[in-house]
Amino acid sequence: MKPTVGILGMGLMGRPMALNVLAAGYPLVVYNRTASRADEVVRAGARLAASPRELAVQCEVVITMVSDPPALEACLWGPDGVLAGLGRGRVLVDSSTVSPALAVRAAAACAELGASFLDAPVTGGTWGAEKGELVFMVGGEAEVLDRARPVLSTMGKRFFHLGPHGAGQSVKLAMNLILALEVGALAEALALVERAGVAGEKLVDVLQASMARAPVLDVKAPLMLERRYEPSFPLRLMHKDLGLAIQLGNELGVPLPAAAAVREVYSAVRGCGGEDLDYAGVASFWER
Amino acid sequence: MKPTVGILGMGLMGRPMALNVLAAGYPLVVYNRTASRADEVVRAGARLAASPRELAVQCEVVITMVSDPPALEACLWGPDGVLAGLGRGRVLVDSSTVSPALAVRAAAACAELGASFLDAPVTGGTWGAEKGELVFMVGGEAEVLDRARPVLSTMGKRFFHLGPHGAGQSVKLAMNLILALEVGALAEALALVERAGVAGEKLVDVLQASMARAPVLDVKAPLMLERRYEPSFPLRLMHKDLGLAIQLGNELGVPLPAAAAVREVYSAVRGCGGEDLDYAGVASFWER
Amino acid sequence: MKPTVGILGMGLMGRPMALNVLAAGYPLVVYNRTASRADEVVRAGARLAASPRELAVQCEVVITMVSDPPALEACLWGPDGVLAGLGRGRVLVDSSTVSPALAVRAAAACAELGASFLDAPVTGGTWGAEKGELVFMVGGEAEVLDRARPVLSTMGKRFFHLGPHGAGQSVKLAMNLILALEVGALAEALALVERAGVAGEKLVDVLQASMARAPVLDVKAPLMLERRYEPSFPLRLMHKDLGLAIQLGNELGVPLPAAAAVREVYSAVRGCGGEDLDYAGVASFWER
Amino acid sequence: MKPTVGILGMGLMGRPMALNVLAAGYPLVVYNRTASRADEVVRAGARLAASPRELAVQCEVVITMVSDPPALEACLWGPDGVLAGLGRGRVLVDSSTVSPALAVRAAAACAELGASFLDAPVTGGTWGAEKGELVFMVGGEAEVLDRARPVLSTMGKRFFHLGPHGAGQSVKLAMNLILALEVGALAEALALVERAGVAGEKLVDVLQASMARAPVLDVKAPLMLERRYEPSFPLRLMHKDLGLAIQLGNELGVPLPAAAAVREVYSAVRGCGGEDLDYAGVASFWER
Repeated sequence: MKPTVGILGMGLMGRPMALNVLAAGYPLVVYNRTASRADEVVRAGARLAASPRELAVQCEVVITMVSDPPALEACLWGPDGVLAGLGRGRVLVDSSTVSPALAVRAAAACAELGASFLDAPVTGGTWGAEKGELVFMVGGEAEVLDRARPVLSTMGKRFFHLGPHGAGQSVKLAMNLILALEVGALAEALALVERAGVAGEKLVDVLQASMARAPVLDVKAPLMLERRYEPSFPLRLMHKDLGLAIQLGNELGVPLPAAAAVREVYSAVRGCGGEDLDYAGVASFWER
Repeated sequence: MKPTVGILGMGLMGRPMALNVLAAGYPLVVYNRTASRADEVVRAGARLAASPRELAVQCEVVITMVSDPPALEACLWGPDGVLAGLGRGRVLVDSSTVSPALAVRAAAACAELGASFLDAPVTGGTWGAEKGELVFMVGGEAEVLDRARPVLSTMGKRFFHLGPHGAGQSVKLAMNLILALEVGALAEALALVERAGVAGEKLVDVLQASMARAPVLDVKAPLMLERRYEPSFPLRLMHKDLGLAIQLGNELGVPLPAAAAVREVYSAVRGCGGEDLDYAGVASFWER
Repeated sequence: MKPTVGILGMGLMGRPMALNVLAAGYPLVVYNRTASRADEVVRAGARLAASPRELAVQCEVVITMVSDPPALEACLWGPDGVLAGLGRGRVLVDSSTVSPALAVRAAAACAELGASFLDAPVTGGTWGAEKGELVFMVGGEAEVLDRARPVLSTMGKRFFHLGPHGAGQSVKLAMNLILALEVGALAEALALVERAGVAGEKLVDVLQASMARAPVLDVKAPLMLERRYEPSFPLRLMHKDLGLAIQLGNELGVPLPAAAAVREVYSAVRGCGGEDLDYAGVASFWER
Repeated sequence: MKPTVGILGMGLMGRPMALNVLAAGYPLVVYNRTASRADEVVRAGARLAASPRELAVQCEVVITMVSDPPALEACLWGPDGVLAGLGRGRVLVDSSTVSPALAVRAAAACAELGASFLDAPVTGGTWGAEKGELVFMVGGEAEVLDRARPVLSTMGKRFFHLGPHGAGQSVKLAMNLILALEVGALAEALALVERAGVAGEKLVDVLQASMARAPVLDVKAPLMLERRYEPSFPLRLMHKDLGLAIQLGNELGVPLPAAAAVREVYSAVRGCGGEDLDYAGVASFWER
């Protein structure tokens, strides 16, 4: 019989991930601070837990998918948190994007309980979550990944085992640094040519014939040209992830000048009401 | 009979371009300040002119491929420069990367002589120049491009007609801004994960499975991982192009914060002896 | 009779502050995680508490002077923390530099206990701490400041009441942003003229005759010219404060591009072993 | 008898400088591209030359005070330029702010004519120009400075001899880098505290009691608080000077990350119609 799975966090990513776990036939328990956001998943067959602790006691594999480090801390260490319910031999998989240091701390807390931990943030966006084609960046022991893999495989196709606890988060932050700068670079380039009197479409045509082309730019360029920024990955989350990457760089003494510069552009857009735009909305910095 | 073509500038790009023009059967005249750099092309059948003016008087299509705006100014307006020899009805094609303002000035000078001008900078690097697969970004009149196209087609496959004089350069600067930031982003990301204890190869593996992958990163990542930076496109030229892009932004009042930040990183590497590295050598900023 | 005062944190600032409180005749209790750093102050007449809680129960005015937000959190909320011992009617004054949000959180915790809180970070460095000439930037109720003023006046001469809880920290972070950029600007300017072949002393001469002169630059310029960076205010703390300022800006949506850029320079120096230099050591970025 | 003096450039600086030369009893010839801007000075007793060349032939000491490098190039090397009229033994003093390289080029051109050159840019703004209290930063031979000093002393009080040709410009660019960053730092700090709910006046009060205080901030802070930016030194000129400083850094391989970041802020304000504001108007970046 399939083990019971728990998912905490019914946001843009957590919901489609939960539906894929259910579709694969796993018993599923879910939790969300605002319970109503779990309605669709409950209708599809999941049980709703009253607290993270209550979820943890029922599940063999617990997956957290929350928006930022404070949310993860509250979810794990808060009153009635996951760690208060997690038993020996269970596996906790954190797919949120947080700092490597927090991943290491969570791993240590699990070890004290006789449970196992993986940091396993994902890339692929809501599209990947819906299709079950997420890419998992995993830190922790290979043997634990092997145990979690059947469940995770309902949500994603590729698993990169990157090193010990925290390695998954380090690579995730580095990946989002690259994505944020690629998209920010396109935004700067478009602003430049348009102010110089050249249609942005022309630049995009050349881009797509060049060594600089990238799938993320294929997706984001049309949003920028049409100035329509329906969120696939919200700007406030990219902004948060850039902050985590820069914080990591600062702790390690690694200067990240371009990331720091582009973060302030995301910050400016966020401060002008753009936090729920897609992160391609960084281009609206030049529209003011 | 095929018209006589002239190429000024026998650098990393000009030499393979010249060989392709010769291979297509065009009579070719070349010029280079340091004449010895034209030896290979002369052995392949080109005549060597004693000055830009002398070249210009012999050729129906004159192509300039020099390293920066002062070099182009010297080549066109200097004593015995191209403009002193360019006759009515001739076509001058500048494939160097310079400012749009200089392109507009060159176009006006040609018009006074009854000649035509195209700004037609290229992308594709030495590899594209050798294979005859450059991409041309063209500003100027479509009819002039049509006239120049047979010759240019010996060097490149794709032609983007982007607008009036200067539009080619604006888009070229924007494209190099994107490339410089993509490569700079990868360099920051690699420095971050390596200092965090993760092998750079792991990040590259994830990158290649992600929306952030890009042909330029496929090419540059191995150079960075091996810390070997044989120049395909030298860092000093990318640094110069970033300077031109930022200068254009400053003239137009378009802030380019990420480009400005990454330019200082290229500048630091250039100032520590890295000017002749490939621009992927920007990664050596973190190796010090 | 004078009320008993408690000071937590016997660092570069806390020690001279404690000596001034003692010199003014106040009974003093001190605490430091590493107890030996309190030796000098204990020899001068202070009692050493075994824990923050034990200190808090004995004192009417409790002053915290620790290095960063996690240290303050541990000191207040940790096991045997200040808040476990703080009684009704007591005053807690935090002179550390932390986020405004943490100040607000501490104020709320004090209110629940019937105690009062001030955020009262200082400027003036170790020199000001020794002379009793610190400047206090205060957030909280004016009436509480009036009650604490006699004690605080032993350590500082000027008190700016800036607004409600958190206002002291907001202004402190803004002040350090200015100082960090002023010193960073001088470092850039010196590097520029020296590489251009002009002696740095010449620039400093002109600076001191100009509108740009500032007391902080009078103090730091000689350190930079001699490349001797004995710490008055350590680089790692300025780097941390810049991080807090930028974090605040990011939360509020206020872009801080120059601060973000200079932070990465401090970060680079910190990462190359410069964390215990004076923050004027940011100039060593250009010496590598 | 006093030697005849020539001044080219009747802008915000050139006019009061000319009036001070006249007031000291020197015969004066002036030139400006738009002749009407010289009216006030002509009424005060100066002769108006028809061209830079005509001015140069009449004067023993020729002073240029124009807005940027292209203006200086046109003025010196253009048709009917200064160099076409400058005789043996004359002294050319350039008080414009241009690149050190251009100063070196002008010095060489003067030497060929048997004339002498000083690069002697100034600080002090329109206020200093009116009071005759400019500070001169001089590159060139000390003996030439001694010859020019009587004339220059009518305009300024302090003379710093900084090294060979170009040294004056290098130091001037470095000084404006510092000023631009100091003012930019105050703008960031004010934006931060105001968004955090603290009145900007409070920050300025603390600033003036701190090590960070600077005369330039005493002058600019009130403009920022009142959001009134009548130009003393126009933003477009500070923006230009920052560009020259960064260009110099890039040529020398000296990274200037904070200067590059703040330049983009000036650029953004310039691009939104702020070019004729005082450079304190950089603060309007956060008002949008």
